[in-house]
Formats: sequence, structure tokens, C-alpha cells
Amino acid sequence: MLKKYLIAPGPTPVPEKVLLEMTKPVIHHRTSEFSATFEKVANGLKKVFSTEQDVLMLAGSGTAAMEAAVVNTLNPGDNVLVINAGKFGQRWRDICKTYGILVSTIDMDWGKAAKPEEIEQFLKANPDTKAVLLQGSETSTTVYHPVEEIAKVVRKNENTLLIVDGITSIGVHDTKFDEWGIDIAITGSQKAFMLPPGLSLICLSKKAWNFVEKSTIPRYYLDLRKELKSQKQATTAYTPALTLINGLAVVLEMFEEEGLENVYKRHAVNGEATRAAVKAMGFKLLAETPSNAATGFYLPEDIDGGKLVKFMREKVGITYAGGQDHLKGRIVRISHLGYHDAFDTITAISGLEMGLRKFGVDIKLGSGIAAAEEILQNYIGE
Amino acid sequence: MLKKYLIAPGPTPVPEKVLLEMTKPVIHHRTSEFSATFEKVANGLKKVFSTEQDVLMLAGSGTAAMEAAVVNTLNPGDNVLVINAGKFGQRWRDICKTYGILVSTIDMDWGKAAKPEEIEQFLKANPDTKAVLLQGSETSTTVYHPVEEIAKVVRKNENTLLIVDGITSIGVHDTKFDEWGIDIAITGSQKAFMLPPGLSLICLSKKAWNFVEKSTIPRYYLDLRKELKSQKQATTAYTPALTLINGLAVVLEMFEEEGLENVYKRHAVNGEATRAAVKAMGFKLLAETPSNAATGFYLPEDIDGGKLVKFMREKVGITYAGGQDHLKGRIVRISHLGYHDAFDTITAISGLEMGLRKFGVDIKLGSGIAAAEEILQNYIGE
Repeated sequence: MLKKYLIAPGPTPVPEKVLLEMTKPVIHHRTSEFSATFEKVANGLKKVFSTEQDVLMLAGSGTAAMEAAVVNTLNPGDNVLVINAGKFGQRWRDICKTYGILVSTIDMDWGKAAKPEEIEQFLKANPDTKAVLLQGSETSTTVYHPVEEIAKVVRKNENTLLIVDGITSIGVHDTKFDEWGIDIAITGSQKAFMLPPGLSLICLSKKAWNFVEKSTIPRYYLDLRKELKSQKQATTAYTPALTLINGLAVVLEMFEEEGLENVYKRHAVNGEATRAAVKAMGFKLLAETPSNAATGFYLPEDIDGGKLVKFMREKVGITYAGGQDHLKGRIVRISHLGYHDAFDTITAISGLEMGLRKFGVDIKLGSGIAAAEEILQNYIGE
Repeated sequence: MLKKYLIAPGPTPVPEKVLLEMTKPVIHHRTSEFSATFEKVANGLKKVFSTEQDVLMLAGSGTAAMEAAVVNTLNPGDNVLVINAGKFGQRWRDICKTYGILVSTIDMDWGKAAKPEEIEQFLKANPDTKAVLLQGSETSTTVYHPVEEIAKVVRKNENTLLIVDGITSIGVHDTKFDEWGIDIAITGSQKAFMLPPGLSLICLSKKAWNFVEKSTIPRYYLDLRKELKSQKQATTAYTPALTLINGLAVVLEMFEEEGLENVYKRHAVNGEATRAAVKAMGFKLLAETPSNAATGFYLPEDIDGGKLVKFMREKVGITYAGGQDHLKGRIVRISHLGYHDAFDTITAISGLEMGLRKFGVDIKLGSGIAAAEEILQNYIGE
């Protein structure tokens, strides 16, 4: 095979138009030329986050923004609740613990979604909880947590922030930051935003900015007060990831052209088609309430998923993701993120049909495709 | 849909590696740096043509090389035989007529292949025939003519040249220029050679070079005597299409890496899979002896192929080719040329399954794919 197909949940393929933008000669960042781009991007980001607040850009990957959320708003000894439903829930817990924050968790089987009523009960029993931290979409399990419903519960508590890792949900699922009452949302460049890794985004509500004033955790590079001050002037506190921001300007133009509602719809349709295909091939989905970022499914017990994923990547040219931690070797995850269209879904399914056969699984060729096409045909040519 | 898929028989997609090579700063062509590349390319081309002769590079599209073949070897009043089996057979006839050459044709229904015995009979009846001109692969009908068998017949005649338009056969079907006894073969950059259009290639046998000495047709830009003299010195008579030649150097490295036999096999497998898919979907192939460059098939009579092709290109993002002349609107042609792998075939078939449904054709979704995968799975992961 000749080509490489990147169908893992991040990093995701970057459109040619964006790559070309990023190959232009580097300009200096303290210039009116860059400030003009910065301002345009800052305005565009507000639309994606559905917010009037500033969306700050940080040179760092998503984890930097996760850490910024914690170190700017909390204090050692604070009580927080982490929804621990996968690999990235664990990351919230680990970051908080690093700073002496007292973490309670709601631990869920991987594949299960957070329950708003359970969070409500927890907050009633623990009214001093300073923050509830969770993922919008838990990439490790391909679960979508009901962020809107959880926000309804959390925002009843004046002294509790809702902190959402939206790394694989913002730009995928319509996320109404202001309307839903999210307090902090973060995301990264290498998922729905169709960019290389290296840029992260963070947005704070007014309530969260009030917490910032009271936080005593030492922070320098990730000090959001300095960033807010600078970014209100269309610049950054430290050297920005400027080619990524130039690329982001093009991405936001592409979003505008496609229409944000169509960006969400595209993820939804490719997600739906992939889930239908996987089920038609006889597999069980991992996620109870699936995210449109990626679809995870269980492999037959006698198949070594690690070997399958390696074979597909090295010999066939398709990069899927396998499972993490206790799901290592047990599942495959197929991304629908970012620069991914109907025929990427078809390639993903066709590769699976043929690849699984190679591994001795009794797959009826074309069965997954037929189910995917049954969905996709309704959107073809629209 | 987001992406564009170029699945017409030329121009064909250019690999990123080649595009990047061609975006390097332009250098001057009268330099040792360029001569080194030129020499490397010239040697590599001999392998693809399976020849000890020089393969000349011309800045011009394939038609320039077709014209060069005629004006360098023939004379006004010469008798030639043209295999007129499609759009490009007609082009040989038109070029010859432009220069006062007397053209006889064997006219074939589109979709039929030339018959060596018929050519043999013609040459027996017309021993003064100076040349037999045909296509290796007739792109308009997706037919492969039996070049090897025809060469056997023509080379019995000392005073007759076999002139082959290999624009969609060289690099697709193994073509042994010396061994088979072809006298002139030409091709273009934008097909199996995975380059943008603008460069053509031409190779002459010793016998053909003898004809060159006797040809009186005036020619300047396309004078192959001047080109041979220059190109033996690793330069060209006039300014070369130098970025394309730099790109060609990378293409030849890619051929080397894949192995020429695998390049042919890849075209054969994708051709076979596409033909199987089209037949499984209930359609009739156009070509009696199909080329591995492209697959043409008849649409149901009530389908306007022009509208279908336009819809697929403009609304779905897949560029197929339709029919030409009297087959306009009646057929679709799917390319397998150049930078095209198994999942491009899958995309082509899946697009058809869904697109034809949109046009009211009763297609069983997944049926074409299943037939294609049945073939492709044998080569997956090799």
C-alpha cells in the first residue's frame, strides 16, 4: 500500500490549506501583522466556544491547559470532585493531587458516562466542593459525558466550578460555554481544530476569574492573569506558537465556510455511520453514550488488538488507536475527528473488514460498509 | 464533504514527497547540479521502458511527444496504418494527416482491442506501410491493446515502424521496449508517473533513428536529433521543465523502493478489484481486454452519465471521468493510475454505490465493495 491514513483520535490530519499557511515564512510576533491575525483568531474562537469570554491561547499541549485550569483557580487543601471514567479523568486527579488538592472521585467502569444525579448527590453531601472536573468526551473510552445536564447541577452551587476538558469535544459536539454555565473549558489544537499539536485553548467564566484572584498556587508560565492582560491587547505574555495561530486563522475560516453546525453534523454523521458499521460487523460498542469524536469497540476475545493495530499501521497504512491500560489489546478506536470525511470512514471500515479477516475473524466483506453507507448516503451531495 | 478525490485517468494525484521536491527553489538548468539529476533520471527511465536506448524528456504534454514521433520519422506521402479504436487512435490519424501522411485505419468499435492477425493481413496487403500507430492503453475506452503480440507481427517488416502511445500503459503494464521490438514509445508525466502535466517522454529504437535521418518534415522545437545530442550530455536543447524533472527523480526513487514489478501489480490488483466491483453491481464493462489504467463501464440507459459525473465531482468531491464522443453520458471511467492505492479503489466504489442510489439505480449497498475487498484482501499487508 502506498498511502498513510491517520484515523486515531489525535493528532489528526491537517488540511493542505492549513499546512500551506504554516509553511509561509515566520514573521515576528510583536508586529501589527501578527496582532491582526491574533485578534481575528480570538474573535473566531469565541464563536466555537459560544462565549463572550476571552478564549486564551497557550503554547503547550492540552495537558498544559488542564494544569492551567487547576493552578489558576484552586488552592492546596481544596476539595474537588473528579469524574474518573477513563485515562483522562485520571489525569485531572493526578494534576490536582500534585498541588495538594483533596480529590474525591466518582469512579466509573470504562465505557460508562457520568450521571448528573450522582454528581448532584455528591455536591449536596459535600457543599464545600470547589470544583467538579471531567471530560466532555473521554477519549480513552469514546464516551460523551452529558456536559449540559451536569452543568445544570453544578451551577446551582455558587462556590463550585465546573471544569471541562473539551479536548475531543469542543469542535465536535456543540458546546455552549455561556448558556450551559461551564466555568472552565479547555481544548487542544490537534483534534477537531485540524492543526498539529502544540497549541491549547482555555476559557474561563466570570465566576472562574473570581476564583483566580483567590488562588495561591505559584504559577509563572501558566499564569492566566498575565495571559488575559496580554491577549486583550492581541498579543501573548510569552512567545506564542505563531505558526499554529496562523494555521488556526485558516481553520476558523474553514469552519466559517462549512458552518459550525455542519462541522458538528459531520462528526455526528461519521460517528453514527461508524457505530452502525461496527455493530453490523457483530461487535459491541465500548461507550454507553458514544462521543462523536471516536468509536471504540470490543474485539473478539482471541484477537490481540495490539498486534492488529500494529499490523494495520505498519503493513496497511491505517493508524487506528488501540486500548489503554486494562483495555490494552481488547479494543480498537476509530476517530472521526477533524479533517475526516465520509470516505475516511469508508476507508476505516473497509480496512477493518479486510484486516480482521487476516486475523481470522469471520467478517462478511461489505457488511460494515453497507451499514455505514446506509447512513452516509443521506448526506452525500448535500 | 471536505476532501477532493481525483480518480480520473489523468491528471492523477501527486504524492506529497514529489510535491515537496517541486516546491524547492528553482535552480538554473545549465548547472552541474541539474545535470546530475538529469543523468540519474535518464538512467531511471531506461529501466521503466526496459530499454538500452535513450528516453528523451520533452517540455510538453503527451501530444507533443506523439507529434514528435510522427514528424521525426515519417514523410508526406508515406502510408501508415492507425489503429482507430477510440479518441486517441483518432489523434494519431489527425496528426499524420496534418503532415500529408496517407492514413489507413483499422476502425474498431469502442471497447474492442486491436487484433494482431488483422494487422498482419494489412501489412501483407500493404507492404509499403511505413508505420503502425496505436495506443498501448486506449484511455477513452479503457482497452489494453496486445502490444507484445502486435510487435511480433510488425517487426517482421523491416520498413515498418511500430509507434506506441504508452501514455496510460507505460508504468502501468510492463512494457519491454527492446525485447518486444517497439520502435517508438511515448508517455506523459501526469499518469503512472504521478507528476503534474507538462513533461513527455519518448524513446526510439535504432531502426526508428534510421528513419529520422530520412524524414524531411520540418521541425524545430520537436527535433529529436537536437534533443538526443543534448540529452546525451545531460542537458536539453531548449529550457527543460526542470521542476518536473526534479519531481521525476523522486518518482523514480519511489518506483525503485516499491519495485517496478509491484508498481505493475498494484495497478493490476486495483484494476481487477474495480472490475469485480463494477460487475458485482450489475454493470457491463466497456473493454473487451481491459487496461489496468482505468475501468470503464456502461451506465443504465436512463441515467445521464454527464449529470452523475458532475454531481459526484461538485457535490461529493470525487472526480471520475465520463465518456467521450458517442459514449458521452453513457459510461463512467474509474482510474487506477499512479498514486492510487487499495483505499482509493474502495472510495471510488463506495462513492459509486451511494451516488448511483441518489440517481435512482437499485444498488445493493456494499455489494461492489464486497467484490473489491474479496480481491484486495489478498494483497493487504503484504
